[in-house]
Amino acid sequence: MQHRVAAIGGDGIGPEIVAAGKDVLDAAGERFGFDIAWTDFDIGADRYLATGDLLTEEDIRGLSKFNAIYFGAIGDDRVKPGILEKGILLAIRFHFDQFINLRPIKLLDGVATPLANKGPQDIDFVVVRENTEDFYVGIGSRFAGRREQKTLDVVRDIYSVRFGLDVETDAEELAYQIGVVTREGAERAIRYAFDLAAAREKKLTSVDKANVLSDVYGLWRDVFTDVAAGYPDVKTEFNFVDAVTMWFVKNPEWFDVVVTPNMFGDIITDLGAMIQGGLGLAPGGNINPNGTSMFEPIHGSAPKYRGLDVANPLATVWAGSMLLDHIGEHEAAAAVLRAIERSILDGFVTRDMGGAKKTSEVGRYLATLVKTV
Amino acid sequence: MQHRVAAIGGDGIGPEIVAAGKDVLDAAGERFGFDIAWTDFDIGADRYLATGDLLTEEDIRGLSKFNAIYFGAIGDDRVKPGILEKGILLAIRFHFDQFINLRPIKLLDGVATPLANKGPQDIDFVVVRENTEDFYVGIGSRFAGRREQKTLDVVRDIYSVRFGLDVETDAEELAYQIGVVTREGAERAIRYAFDLAAAREKKLTSVDKANVLSDVYGLWRDVFTDVAAGYPDVKTEFNFVDAVTMWFVKNPEWFDVVVTPNMFGDIITDLGAMIQGGLGLAPGGNINPNGTSMFEPIHGSAPKYRGLDVANPLATVWAGSMLLDHIGEHEAAAAVLRAIERSILDGFVTRDMGGAKKTSEVGRYLATLVKTV
Ligand SMILES: CC(C)[C@H](C(=O)O)[C@@H](O)C(=O)O
Ligand SMILES: CC(C)[C@H](C(=O)O)[C@@H](O)C(=O)O
Repeated sequence: MQHRVAAIGGDGIGPEIVAAGKDVLDAAGERFGFDIAWTDFDIGADRYLATGDLLTEEDIRGLSKFNAIYFGAIGDDRVKPGILEKGILLAIRFHFDQFINLRPIKLLDGVATPLANKGPQDIDFVVVRENTEDFYVGIGSRFAGRREQKTLDVVRDIYSVRFGLDVETDAEELAYQIGVVTREGAERAIRYAFDLAAAREKKLTSVDKANVLSDVYGLWRDVFTDVAAGYPDVKTEFNFVDAVTMWFVKNPEWFDVVVTPNMFGDIITDLGAMIQGGLGLAPGGNINPNGTSMFEPIHGSAPKYRGLDVANPLATVWAGSMLLDHIGEHEAAAAVLRAIERSILDGFVTRDMGGAKKTSEVGRYLATLVKTV
Repeated sequence: MQHRVAAIGGDGIGPEIVAAGKDVLDAAGERFGFDIAWTDFDIGADRYLATGDLLTEEDIRGLSKFNAIYFGAIGDDRVKPGILEKGILLAIRFHFDQFINLRPIKLLDGVATPLANKGPQDIDFVVVRENTEDFYVGIGSRFAGRREQKTLDVVRDIYSVRFGLDVETDAEELAYQIGVVTREGAERAIRYAFDLAAAREKKLTSVDKANVLSDVYGLWRDVFTDVAAGYPDVKTEFNFVDAVTMWFVKNPEWFDVVVTPNMFGDIITDLGAMIQGGLGLAPGGNINPNGTSMFEPIHGSAPKYRGLDVANPLATVWAGSMLLDHIGEHEAAAAVLRAIERSILDGFVTRDMGGAKKTSEVGRYLATLVKTV
């Protein structure tokens, strides 16, 4: 059996951690009887600085031939924040309509959490983040003075009609940002989460801020309620995003599956990453069940460690396990996760986790472990 | 010396905790030589259900005669989420242009935090939340089918121009929400935070998501940078909101003053409340330095405990301490906070904090303590 998978190392530590991850996945393939044909794509800051290209038509055509992409990280000190993130990472998510961002929050055995009196039995849930809408649609504008008088007037009008205030009409410089939620967009993410909940503990929490951002999240809640009708066995609950950050820290054991719009998903999954031991251990999948999906560590490119062979590859290897699951290699996926757990218990880890091993050493160790564990 | 202060007990446990708080503030006045003339306003769910009134013109005229409001809580199971919050709480914040939401995050001696290995010396910072702009402006709309074809087309156009996608043009039902940041609005909050930082440890962290919501938070960052030029002694830093939730949990000792737009402020101050021991201990001030300010516990109205005399009044009493600070009674404010600390060390607390005392008992105990502590 052969699987064709695209790989984008990207910037900073990206290429090193993806290299380690590939070794582990290849080794898993040897054991479980499949072979991965990797196709590398040169996308990232270096190319951008040389050519101005972020994600080209050709990249898209090339990537669209795969149903899985293994992604390292992008981000570089020489480029203004936002350019690479939006031009590459978000562009891939949107272009391939990867409408699910799947984030397991699971404290592995032997990993330290910053929470007092919580262990692996307390921290084991999954966040389903809607990944193509909300405030990530990139619609907004910014202007000063008379330049864009017309748009300015429109916004001012809405503003003063809503609040009966004149305060804002004097604003000399103003920016606005628009978030969009559609029924279809919310529904497919929510349905995915219900299916996942039905296969797990039948408990689903929806996170929003419908008491203040009532238009977008009012629609989100209505869709949730409509979809829920089809899953009478799943216990459901609405939480406000501010409150949920408290419960993640105080009672993580309350959660099993959490579904949330894009922006709040971004926030609460980082918090989730920290309670599961930090970014070195947090993988994510950007999923289009009928298209091209992408698996990545959720941390950044850590430019200052580039080439030093010190970065923790575990989040990337775990993302590789998710990739294997996605392409149907469930046994191999489980073995990769077991190998990660074993390497942690063996103390065979990088500096950030209290060890002294190199990125490549951890990769090789996992590649060996995965053949027997 | 007499101070005139408005009081709004509100819903659920609100009236009980405000009553306890008033007792403590009155006692502090006896010791420090001032007297508070309280004027109660009947605003909340009961009146809304009886008359349909949320915040009336008369309420506003009445409240505008005070420079401080002592606020309990609003929210009631008989009313749809959002109605009272927006119609009363947010309406007061906006109408009185209370542009600062001030939230001390301080772990008091004797209070348990859910974080491992962190104590009062690690958790002691202040969040300055901008309180009148951003996604709280309440601008948005929701529509289905052909009803509002024109607006729908506009949003669809922007959507497809930005992403070159046709996917969204088929949306049958769609909602959008607009956030607004003005230079003036951002500047006054940021300047307040710099002044506070200059008076504390000269360290200020700005929290945003400028890498994705680049229009509103790009302006926010530029304003921050402009204001920073006037405070060369203050060390500054930008954090993304997703990352900051991690550092609050992992390294709260890194923070001294944090400034952030409204919505992210809502989220991170709840997280902050939890690391300082939970909502029972989290006060907030809604401040207009030249107008009518409002002080409140940041928790809700807990309708099911209404009238049972079991609610924890400490957050409200602490909010009272902030109120005293605001009206210039600094010594009294400090004494109230000392009384809170003493009552905790004495174990004279309500059930949620592991004690067995009633709301009113804690109030009376604090009123006694504040005369000598
Ligand atoms: C890098 C950034 C654009 C991205 C996001 O905001 O989605 C990241 O934080 C994530 O969660 O994958
Ligand atoms: C009740 C709600 C509208 C309010 C807010 O979102 O600001 C609350 O969460 C707060 O932080 O004061």
